[in-house]
Formats: sequence, C-alpha cells, structure tokens
Amino acid sequence: MESTEFIKEYADSDGRYGPVKTQFADFDGIELESGAFLGPLRVAYETYGTLSPKYDNAVLILHALSGDAHVAGINEKGRIGWWDALIGPEKGIDTDKYFVICSNCLGGCIGTTGPPSINPATGKPYGRSFPLITMGDMVNVQALLVKHLGIDRLHNVIGGSMGGTQALEWAVRYPDMIRSAIVIAATARLSPQGIAFNWVGRNAIYSDPARPCTESDQGDAYQKVGRGLAVARMIGHITYLSEDTMEAKFGRKRALKDVDGYRYSLGENGKEGGEFEVESYLEHQGSTFMERFDEDSYVVITKAIDRFDLEAAHGDLVTAFRNIKAKMLVLSYTSDWLYPTSMSLTIVRALQALNKHVSFVELDLPYGHDSFLVSAGMPTLTRIVRGFLNGVV
Amino acid sequence: MESTEFIKEYADSDGRYGPVKTQFADFDGIELESGAFLGPLRVAYETYGTLSPKYDNAVLILHALSGDAHVAGINEKGRIGWWDALIGPEKGIDTDKYFVICSNCLGGCIGTTGPPSINPATGKPYGRSFPLITMGDMVNVQALLVKHLGIDRLHNVIGGSMGGTQALEWAVRYPDMIRSAIVIAATARLSPQGIAFNWVGRNAIYSDPARPCTESDQGDAYQKVGRGLAVARMIGHITYLSEDTMEAKFGRKRALKDVDGYRYSLGENGKEGGEFEVESYLEHQGSTFMERFDEDSYVVITKAIDRFDLEAAHGDLVTAFRNIKAKMLVLSYTSDWLYPTSMSLTIVRALQALNKHVSFVELDLPYGHDSFLVSAGMPTLTRIVRGFLNGVV
Repeated sequence: MESTEFIKEYADSDGRYGPVKTQFADFDGIELESGAFLGPLRVAYETYGTLSPKYDNAVLILHALSGDAHVAGINEKGRIGWWDALIGPEKGIDTDKYFVICSNCLGGCIGTTGPPSINPATGKPYGRSFPLITMGDMVNVQALLVKHLGIDRLHNVIGGSMGGTQALEWAVRYPDMIRSAIVIAATARLSPQGIAFNWVGRNAIYSDPARPCTESDQGDAYQKVGRGLAVARMIGHITYLSEDTMEAKFGRKRALKDVDGYRYSLGENGKEGGEFEVESYLEHQGSTFMERFDEDSYVVITKAIDRFDLEAAHGDLVTAFRNIKAKMLVLSYTSDWLYPTSMSLTIVRALQALNKHVSFVELDLPYGHDSFLVSAGMPTLTRIVRGFLNGVV
Repeated sequence: MESTEFIKEYADSDGRYGPVKTQFADFDGIELESGAFLGPLRVAYETYGTLSPKYDNAVLILHALSGDAHVAGINEKGRIGWWDALIGPEKGIDTDKYFVICSNCLGGCIGTTGPPSINPATGKPYGRSFPLITMGDMVNVQALLVKHLGIDRLHNVIGGSMGGTQALEWAVRYPDMIRSAIVIAATARLSPQGIAFNWVGRNAIYSDPARPCTESDQGDAYQKVGRGLAVARMIGHITYLSEDTMEAKFGRKRALKDVDGYRYSLGENGKEGGEFEVESYLEHQGSTFMERFDEDSYVVITKAIDRFDLEAAHGDLVTAFRNIKAKMLVLSYTSDWLYPTSMSLTIVRALQALNKHVSFVELDLPYGHDSFLVSAGMPTLTRIVRGFLNGVV
C-alpha cells in the first residue's frame, strides 16, 4: 500500500492536525446485492495515524447519512472533520495508537461513486438512474477498501446512526475481519415512523422541478435548482433533535427582529422568512445542505436505510448474529426518539441469547439522535470508546 | 334567523341523518387583529337539531386544520361528517337536545372566505396574498356567525387540536357568550417542534412550482399542480399518529406485491412507488388531500396555529384566563406527542390557580394526536362529553 500522510506535526492549538487530504482508491467495480454490476468504482477516504508493522491497529469509521470521509483534522479548505472531537492524538480514538480510516459511502456524493458520478454507459452522471443499493453493498465497498490497504483484520469498526447499522452489518458479514464493533444510536431495522420520514423527504425532492446535474466525481458541489433537498434535510433535522433540546435551544423565540405585532406578512412572492428561531435554524440547515449534498444521493442512501432489516434478511436476529465473533458495544441515548433505546436493546438481547461478548450503555443526554455528534456528548463518549478499545485484544 | 333544516327523518340505518346542507352567512367584513379590513366575508356552516325557544341549547363545534363545516350526518354527495360518530340523535352531543353548529374557519377553503375567495380589489382569488390571520380572528368570525343566528350564549364550544385551541380562545375572548368549553388535544402555545413541522410543510409548498388557482368560494376543488401540499400533509400525518400505531398498523409490511428481492427500482422517471405500506398510506393521504384542500389555506392556517400563544399575548396564562367564566373540560391522550399531556396540564394548572371550574382527563389511547377522531376512541369520548354537557347548567 501507499504510505499514508502522517501529519501530526501540523497540529493546531486545539490538537487538530492538518491539512488532511482525501485520497482515492479505484476499482474495476463491484457486484451489487441486486446482481447488477457497478463499475468503475472509486472510493474516497482519509487516514490518520500510522499503520502498525503488523497491520493490526486499524479502526474504520462509518459515517451517517450526510457524512463524508473527512472525519478528523483540518482539510485544505480549513474544514474540521465531523468527528474530530473523538478522533486524534490522545483523543477517544487515539491516533497515536490507532490507524484510523474513514471512507465516503457508496451512493454518496462526496468522492465515492454515487449518483453524481459519470455512468460509463451514457457518459453522463447517473443521477436518479443510479442502481438501488443496500447497506450490505456499502459495507462490501468498505471491505474492498480495507483489503486494498492491505489490512486483513480491523481492530474496530464504529459508527452512529447509519454508521451504526453498518457497524452491525460488518459484524454479521465479515466476522473474521473485525475484532470489535461499536454500534451507536442504531437499529437492526428502521421503524415505520423512520421509513415515513424518509419517504416524505424523498417526496419533497420528487415534487421539485427536475434540475440539471453535472459531473461531481471528485466531490465538488454542483448546481442545484429547487428546494426539495432542503425540505428533506429540514425534516431530518427535526427528527435528529429532541423536543427538550428544541424547547431549550429555541423555544418560541423570534428570529425576525422587525416583526411587530401582526405586521409580518407572507411576503411579496408568497415566500416567508423564518419568523421563529427554530425556523431560521432549519432554513440554515436546509440551505447549507443544498450546497454540499446531492439530492439523488439522498434518495439512494435513505432508500438503503429504509430497506436495511437484519431480521427479515436472516429470518430473525439470533440467526443473523450467530456467526458474530467481534466484541460488541451498543450505545443508545435516552432522548433519541428516531432510533430509541428499545431498538438497541433488541440488538443486545439477540447477542446475549447467543452468549456473544456484548456491552450496552444507555447514555442520559438530552440532545436526541444527534447526541453522538454534539460536543456536549464527547467527554462521555470519549471515556467509553477509549475504555472499550483498550479492552479489545 | 332562518329556520334550519331538521332532517332527522332522513336518518339511515346507522342513525346518520341527511342530506345535510351547508348554509352560508354573508357579512360586510371584519376588522382583523392586524388592523386590516377583510370583506366581504362569507361563512359556510351547517346546523343539526333544533334551536330551543330560549335559544339556549346551542353547541358550537370547532374543526381542526383540515376540517370543514360538515361535521355530522350525510351530505348530498354522500359524505359522512368528520365527527358524525360523536354528534347526532342520542350520540355524545345529542341533537335531540342540542342545536349543533359547525362552521368552516376563516382562511379555510371549504366555503368560508379564504385564499381561494375572490379579492374584490383585484377580481381574482387572494391566493397567497390573503392577509395574515390569527386564531383570534377565526374565533371572532365564529362569534359573528353565532350572533347572526340570534344566539347570545352558547351551551358549549368544543374542538380538538386547532379546534381545541379555538375553544380555549373562546373562553378567554368571549367569557359571557359560552357556558362551557371542551378543549381536546390542544395547547395554549405550540411547541418549537410543532412550529418546525409546520414550517417544513409550508416550505414543501413553497418549493413547488407556482400554480394557477381559480375561484372556489363555494368550496369546489380547483386545479392543482405540484405536490408540495401532499408532502406537507404527509408530514402532518406522521405527527398525528403514534409510533406504536404505526408499528401495529403498518410495521415494515410491503405494499408493492411485485417487489422481489432487489429488483425494485426507483422507476423510469425517477419517482418511486410506495414500497412499504406506511408509504402507500401516506401517499394516499397526501393525494386525497390535494383533491380537497387549498395550499394557500394550508399556509395561512398553519401560520395562525404557529403564532397562537396565549402566554405571550397576555403575559402569562393566569392573566390570560382571569376572566374565564365557562366550565372547562380539558382532555389529552397518552400517545399524543404533538400536543402532549404536559401542554394540557399547563392549561389546567393555570385554571386551577384561579379556582376556575376545570375538569381534566388524560385518556389512555394508543392512536396519537388523532385519537379524538378515530372510531376506537369514540365510546370513551362519547361518555365523557355527554356527562360533562349534562352537568352544565
């Protein structure tokens, strides 16, 4: 394998290092679970720390729906990785000890082959003709990358939300390739309520006027028209936050300072400004998401999330888990109503029924599904993850 | 006043009577809380039962976001009223005893003046230029209608969801015009989560291509293009159901019977069929809503719901409620996460602090916010409402 960039010496005063660079691995292609062949295949990834001489200290990070390969450090654009608080020298996942890998998922739009990539059959981007993929396909592509890096067995796979379901899929699919897995705020199958929210988000995209899309294989943002993706993202954000967090953070505070009594109106062209702070927050989340994400990736990935169902795929969870060899850690959050603790316990109980090595922690944090990403949750997560990783031999 | 149609003799075998007819009352207009004048003003309403010689047996029904004046019996199109299970001869609100009135709300699109009505200043429908209205404006228009019918004091006002907030507004605004009020699954102010869902729904509408709209003063459906309103409605429906109901009713059952493994695809033109039953259910709800509702009414009414805040309007709830004279009954449902019991208790405690006559019942039903409308909830609701109304003298 190529040597990876170890750039700790560029650390800033907060211990972040950089500039980290996204790397790319190219493959002929992959046979999808549907039987279709998808190729060529490019995988965007970043690495941090140094691979040990025995190649036995690698940790694979699995991102959530809207994540990307840039999980730690600062990249050339000055952007901080999405889980930088957890990953770095002396952090929860200590890059002085571990060689950390994170790749953009299959079907994504931030460097790995997905709807914005060129379809070789047409010379144009796949767009919405991108084949239907599964969580298993995403994990198979991650396994390709790991093998490409020369690694036979990972010390750990870890992820939250969709990343957590992938960690679970890893444990089921590649029992000999991982020593441990950390499954955070995840589920073995999405609830109908979760399916419903994703369905509505996709329909917001479909109800949008069709828009042209241009190549974006290297992850560059490309032109968007219509606001369906922003609406989908806003729906998502409501489900990521707890009601208590919304009440504490926004309440009914006004964002428009010039609103006076009833003089506020819906505006000239029938659009409205965000009168309440919670509206303004969502508007910001939706708008910035439009800048960095692809609506067809959103469709393809949410569909894979909806379809993920280890119970249905294997008959029941105990059957699904029977070959697992990894030490498992399952984490949930009290205030997460999208992937609630009950879903994590379903996983834990099936593992216990098989006498697998499983630990479970429910964390009492008020931030909803987003708890695994917010800074206030990092000290606890750091302590738990560090302790668990140290215990894996 | 005109004599109303008493048509009990047309009752069907289920005790529904009909055909009930929507009536209309015309007014010069009304001064809105914003200070703007809105006129002319037409109010669509239906009545059931007979007004007593003393005019003292009237009950006013207040509908929710998507409701209309047709609350009971069967109309000429064969449609059954939306709360027919509660209202009729010998039912919870017994039309042998009470004279029942229900009107379409101001800003609506089913007969009462709203965005689809002709703006006399332009000769065209108001559309999204309809003035911003408040819950208070809606109640003021209802009071106009009640006075128009010659009634000085109502025996009761009752409603669920938005109708419940109107019942509360009635008690505050017209203390001498009502003897009692029943406030079901309602709140004195919407939560930021509720505001957020409404905001996203309106944004789904705004992200739609602009569409022409034609006159619809009499409540006829008019041509729609774009699916933003359907998306908004689907978001709403998720919030009206409990997660338990979704799990029991839909689970992860498939709606598309021809889906075989991974052969399902996103379809020719990038749209998808509802693969899961919950998706198919939402699709149906969204599509049928497009047939009968106006997107600009949806905007105007949800904005009034968002802005309703008795605490902010009066400083605090105790101050808001100080002049209430009505006997109050407040109902909530254990599984309602949109307008949860805590919101009802906030109302109850403020009334108790003033030593007002208030009863409170939390009903243990699994159907979420929709519990006040579903047939399984009717026996309990019938018993409680009948008992309360009998006790009001």
